[in-house]
Amino acid sequence: MLEKVDLNCDMGEGFGQWTLSEAPDDEIMALITSANVATGFHAGDPMTMDRVVRLAQEHGVGLGAHPAYRDLQGFGRRFMKMNADELVNDIIYQVGALREFGRLHGIGLQHVKPHGALYMEAAVNEELSQLLVDTMARSSPDTILFCMGVSKTYEVARRSGHPVVREFYADRDYDKSGSIVFARKVARPSAEAIAEKCVRACTQGKVSTVDGVDIDIAFESICFHSDTPGALEIGKSIRNGLTEAGITIAPAATVIGT
Amino acid sequence: MLEKVDLNCDMGEGFGQWTLSEAPDDEIMALITSANVATGFHAGDPMTMDRVVRLAQEHGVGLGAHPAYRDLQGFGRRFMKMNADELVNDIIYQVGALREFGRLHGIGLQHVKPHGALYMEAAVNEELSQLLVDTMARSSPDTILFCMGVSKTYEVARRSGHPVVREFYADRDYDKSGSIVFARKVARPSAEAIAEKCVRACTQGKVSTVDGVDIDIAFESICFHSDTPGALEIGKSIRNGLTEAGITIAPAATVIGT
Amino acid sequence: MLEKVDLNCDMGEGFGQWTLSEAPDDEIMALITSANVATGFHAGDPMTMDRVVRLAQEHGVGLGAHPAYRDLQGFGRRFMKMNADELVNDIIYQVGALREFGRLHGIGLQHVKPHGALYMEAAVNEELSQLLVDTMARSSPDTILFCMGVSKTYEVARRSGHPVVREFYADRDYDKSGSIVFARKVARPSAEAIAEKCVRACTQGKVSTVDGVDIDIAFESICFHSDTPGALEIGKSIRNGLTEAGITIAPAATVIGT
Amino acid sequence: MLEKVDLNCDMGEGFGQWTLSEAPDDEIMALITSANVATGFHAGDPMTMDRVVRLAQEHGVGLGAHPAYRDLQGFGRRFMKMNADELVNDIIYQVGALREFGRLHGIGLQHVKPHGALYMEAAVNEELSQLLVDTMARSSPDTILFCMGVSKTYEVARRSGHPVVREFYADRDYDKSGSIVFARKVARPSAEAIAEKCVRACTQGKVSTVDGVDIDIAFESICFHSDTPGALEIGKSIRNGLTEAGITIAPAATVIGT
Repeated sequence: MLEKVDLNCDMGEGFGQWTLSEAPDDEIMALITSANVATGFHAGDPMTMDRVVRLAQEHGVGLGAHPAYRDLQGFGRRFMKMNADELVNDIIYQVGALREFGRLHGIGLQHVKPHGALYMEAAVNEELSQLLVDTMARSSPDTILFCMGVSKTYEVARRSGHPVVREFYADRDYDKSGSIVFARKVARPSAEAIAEKCVRACTQGKVSTVDGVDIDIAFESICFHSDTPGALEIGKSIRNGLTEAGITIAPAATVIGT
Repeated sequence: MLEKVDLNCDMGEGFGQWTLSEAPDDEIMALITSANVATGFHAGDPMTMDRVVRLAQEHGVGLGAHPAYRDLQGFGRRFMKMNADELVNDIIYQVGALREFGRLHGIGLQHVKPHGALYMEAAVNEELSQLLVDTMARSSPDTILFCMGVSKTYEVARRSGHPVVREFYADRDYDKSGSIVFARKVARPSAEAIAEKCVRACTQGKVSTVDGVDIDIAFESICFHSDTPGALEIGKSIRNGLTEAGITIAPAATVIGT
Repeated sequence: MLEKVDLNCDMGEGFGQWTLSEAPDDEIMALITSANVATGFHAGDPMTMDRVVRLAQEHGVGLGAHPAYRDLQGFGRRFMKMNADELVNDIIYQVGALREFGRLHGIGLQHVKPHGALYMEAAVNEELSQLLVDTMARSSPDTILFCMGVSKTYEVARRSGHPVVREFYADRDYDKSGSIVFARKVARPSAEAIAEKCVRACTQGKVSTVDGVDIDIAFESICFHSDTPGALEIGKSIRNGLTEAGITIAPAATVIGT
Repeated sequence: MLEKVDLNCDMGEGFGQWTLSEAPDDEIMALITSANVATGFHAGDPMTMDRVVRLAQEHGVGLGAHPAYRDLQGFGRRFMKMNADELVNDIIYQVGALREFGRLHGIGLQHVKPHGALYMEAAVNEELSQLLVDTMARSSPDTILFCMGVSKTYEVARRSGHPVVREFYADRDYDKSGSIVFARKVARPSAEAIAEKCVRACTQGKVSTVDGVDIDIAFESICFHSDTPGALEIGKSIRNGLTEAGITIAPAATVIGT
């Protein structure tokens, strides 16, 4: 039974004239405790970053960098075969860009969460996860790394003593290995169903899978996506559900006590 | 008569497989006291930034960000009509990216020097210079801004009390207004002639112009370009000339005592 | 009194995951006779180009390339100071990319319409317009150039004997010089008002201006924008208005008889 | 024993201010019979494409498009996991851009040769090769596809009856499977040794491998790289060697008689 949990959301996923989410940024920001802000390689131009970071500061939301493969066309969802040092330097670059907007608005960097295909690659690529953790140990030893519970990223961060947070995916399906299933189901769950799933995961440590069996799940943060249709309703529903269940929603740094 | 002067050079102006300068980075770095490192928009991929920042740290060189218009194709040398806030956010983004590599290698950010057309635009655009100075006052109050002596940038920084350094261009020609002339002369001056020009500027505060008259010139840093043919010889020649004239070469932060 | 007029619209203005217009492409395509397809520099990834070009072929719509400054972040709306040959080569590149999708789907290239800031720059830059016309005379002598009526582009194309079409902007305001005013009015005109404005321009050759006076206006094509709110209603309203006024709506090549 | 062979080289691999090869383009162009011109995604800005295509026309060299993954930073040498239709549309886009410069300079498109990681991916990815061949059958049925001899690309093109040319790599090593080995040997072969290797491959149909055994090799074109140090000497040496051996060097279209 979790007493405290973080609620995080990807933010600022537009570029120039384009936006991705229909949900207003400030309304999403009012619901969450950690924001993963796109850092320019898959989305997130500097004007957007400036605006979203200011919103995070105003709402007392934990600020996170959301670095990705350099792939605007593919929204960072396409795997690119790169050396670990190339990837980590691309991450460092993006993390720094986001942190600077934090300096400007008086808010420190709470966490780093790789985006899309890079998140999934880090989950299975131990060399990459290790180099990322070792590099962050030098440049940002107090910055939390967000990852999947079942991942090399989590193993490496724990082993290295780097602050780390596991995510529970509110609006994604799981398979029995604990991995996320990307193929979308025909029937979209309601906001209420998503909230119940989150509450059960927090109180019982269980989630049902597409394979029809329950698995154990452990995490410190719940993630939902601002571009999921009905994101605002989903966020409100999760907040209400957790609150009614007596679970405190707080930024990741508070949850893990860094 | 200057007792101390900074010697700066643009560094890391490649991108991926491409390099611009024939001069080896470490040999240039051994000659200078401040490095302006390309930050990805006109040149400077993260691998290059990582390598060049480490070199700066190893050589005790003052680290500077060299942000530019987002224009790889035009190497940041083409003016783009953008709102001041768009430009300043683009600069903040790039400055942060570079600063993060400094965090990684244990070296703080000494200065920011806009590149190419952005440098020239800031020189004549008071609104842009003012917004840049005001923004840096919030995110990096101790970070020196590099600029031309005859520029809105200098006026605004002085008026606002922001640390600022004026540059003398060793390998560019001046006109009688004190501006740089970009059309290249047929006859390239020798490394010795360039060194003499620098020494005279330091000791007498004078430079001759393409208009045939001398003008007064005031500055705290001398700039030469690593992609000028013979850059290494030019750098050595300037160093020798200044040293023989009894002038101390030191990072900009030391020169202006921040 | 115009007997025939073309109706054109900018299409395919998304990039990767992002879209700009809420109006479905196929419904817009069913209304228009010429499509200006974004060619990748300000919008328009190859997947989108493929899809939109196929739609144009299916609907018998005249296919046009909509080249722009290389500026995804600014959506091609920011002026960039480039040499005329740099700009024309950028245009040639984009035109070819679009034409190839036409080859794939069995539809030739009817026209070229520069986008945004490039369209406005060509309108006032005679050197650029002349080089563009001269270059198209070599690579695409039968491809129509779209432009504003009051523009260097039109003057140069007429003088050079290159096929050219002037546009009337249904959803933009004019000033008394015949130029488009970009500042948007608070009160958005209704679809009916826009249709009436078009019909009057076709039948009387007049348009009222923000300066409060009418001016003469001459054109062969009417443009509306797919990202204007209510674009679908506007398009339908214009079609109905023109049809009721007895004006034939046909592709630009038919209107000018190339 | 080959009577005729094509000699091809990658050209125009700079971007903006950057160049890759030290060999002057016109001197390389005087040696070869087919040019693979970079099309903007890994290298090759429109100014460079314009210049290189004009050179190809002037030297009577067969013009080829050299499309790549969209990856300037990695020079198209990094694999990206994309759907086949995304890749083929990216290729169509680039092919069209290059073909348009051919229209401008009065030279048709002879061939398409995917670059770097895309070339290697097509070699092993049958779905991609098939979709590329099927798509080219619609947009460019007479345009030759260049590939490795041991590849899905070759199999698919032959089976589909699409014109295809196999390459022999003069300045790369082979393994016994007939694949190219990318790890560079410490000892670089001399221009003479490379020429001998080419002559032997043409006259005996054999090449020695890094595994120490000879393999049979069949091809219609010999490739060398303009960024290999000493490229000009290598090109001249190959030309001389082939000529002395009585082999005619001719554009790929002539060699295979399309």
